[in-house]
Amino acid sequence: MSIGAGELASVQLLGDIIKSCRTKHPLIRYEIFTASADLTKERMDKGLTDIGLLLEPINIEKYEFIRLDVKERWVAVMPADDPLAAREYVTADDLMTGPLILPIRGGVRNELLSWFGSSFDRERVILTHSMSTNASIMVQKGMGRCVTVEGSLPYLDNNVLALRPLYPELTSTSVLAWKRQQPFSLAATKFIEHLKCFLGMTES
Amino acid sequence: MSIGAGELASVQLLGDIIKSCRTKHPLIRYEIFTASADLTKERMDKGLTDIGLLLEPINIEKYEFIRLDVKERWVAVMPADDPLAAREYVTADDLMTGPLILPIRGGVRNELLSWFGSSFDRERVILTHSMSTNASIMVQKGMGRCVTVEGSLPYLDNNVLALRPLYPELTSTSVLAWKRQQPFSLAATKFIEHLKCFLGMTES
Repeated sequence: MSIGAGELASVQLLGDIIKSCRTKHPLIRYEIFTASADLTKERMDKGLTDIGLLLEPINIEKYEFIRLDVKERWVAVMPADDPLAAREYVTADDLMTGPLILPIRGGVRNELLSWFGSSFDRERVILTHSMSTNASIMVQKGMGRCVTVEGSLPYLDNNVLALRPLYPELTSTSVLAWKRQQPFSLAATKFIEHLKCFLGMTES
Repeated sequence: MSIGAGELASVQLLGDIIKSCRTKHPLIRYEIFTASADLTKERMDKGLTDIGLLLEPINIEKYEFIRLDVKERWVAVMPADDPLAAREYVTADDLMTGPLILPIRGGVRNELLSWFGSSFDRERVILTHSMSTNASIMVQKGMGRCVTVEGSLPYLDNNVLALRPLYPELTSTSVLAWKRQQPFSLAATKFIEHLKCFLGMTES
């Protein structure tokens, strides 16, 4: 079965769900197709992906969904020797002191623009990114600081790059979503049953 | 201008090209859309992406391209405390001792299947992935070992996950490609000129 997922802290929870589902249904095979929420939705509409793990805001009115109890915290990514890395957190004004790398996706960018408020100067944005790994390489090359969700860069070597939370704190939520009345494969049906049970939505 | 790129060691070189281009053409803004080579090609065909950084094998006969002098080395990703992490490298037989996480993309999978040879047992493959970050979370959860290109997991904390090269060594190449006779924007035209110069293809 196919799961479309962003690079998010909630992928850790997805891993726990798959792991526990494997003890119950060891024959199910999984595909994890990493993509932004827009693209995953498109793939669900085309029937290429059964379930999506989507960063909000995203329009999910056509879908059945469960909002996950995981905070997706926004952070600034910078070289470990960036003077800002000495701070506990960074503000919009701090970030406006140098070039910036921001996410491409519209809905998510609007949340960020609202966080930046009147401090925002679009001239600072020299690069936009869809996934954090390649953006982190541009940060390490000294091209600018990147704003992204913390969960997209797990297991990072703190000697190379530093992640610092935004202040005021900015967090997003994510949902597990699937099409209503989709004729799912047996594997996907079992997995959806299991995840509802895992997340305490139904009796086991 | 828009660049579509896989998660590759050669993104480091792409970073160097962008950085040096910024000194010559400071007004150019970049978008880096991370995707597999198939999807980036599709986006180039639709005119959504100007330039692709593609992991081979990929059919690029319709494109103008430069093959990069960067080795994309295939590795196994495992928890740092996996007994295999004590080895300098891992063989196909080593990997067949436990569950496996392999790439989705067809062309790339065929290279891997050929490397595995007669050791390969498809029953071991419990999960396929399109991008390494989410796959690495599944590895850390103990779901299996993941085979991927080393450059897709830069700046990794070695205390959590270990990358070990395959033996016999398996490497791939990557290309920077763009459509022939495409009416490019001025920015993309300048960038292509610059990258040819940077890579020693033309006089500056």
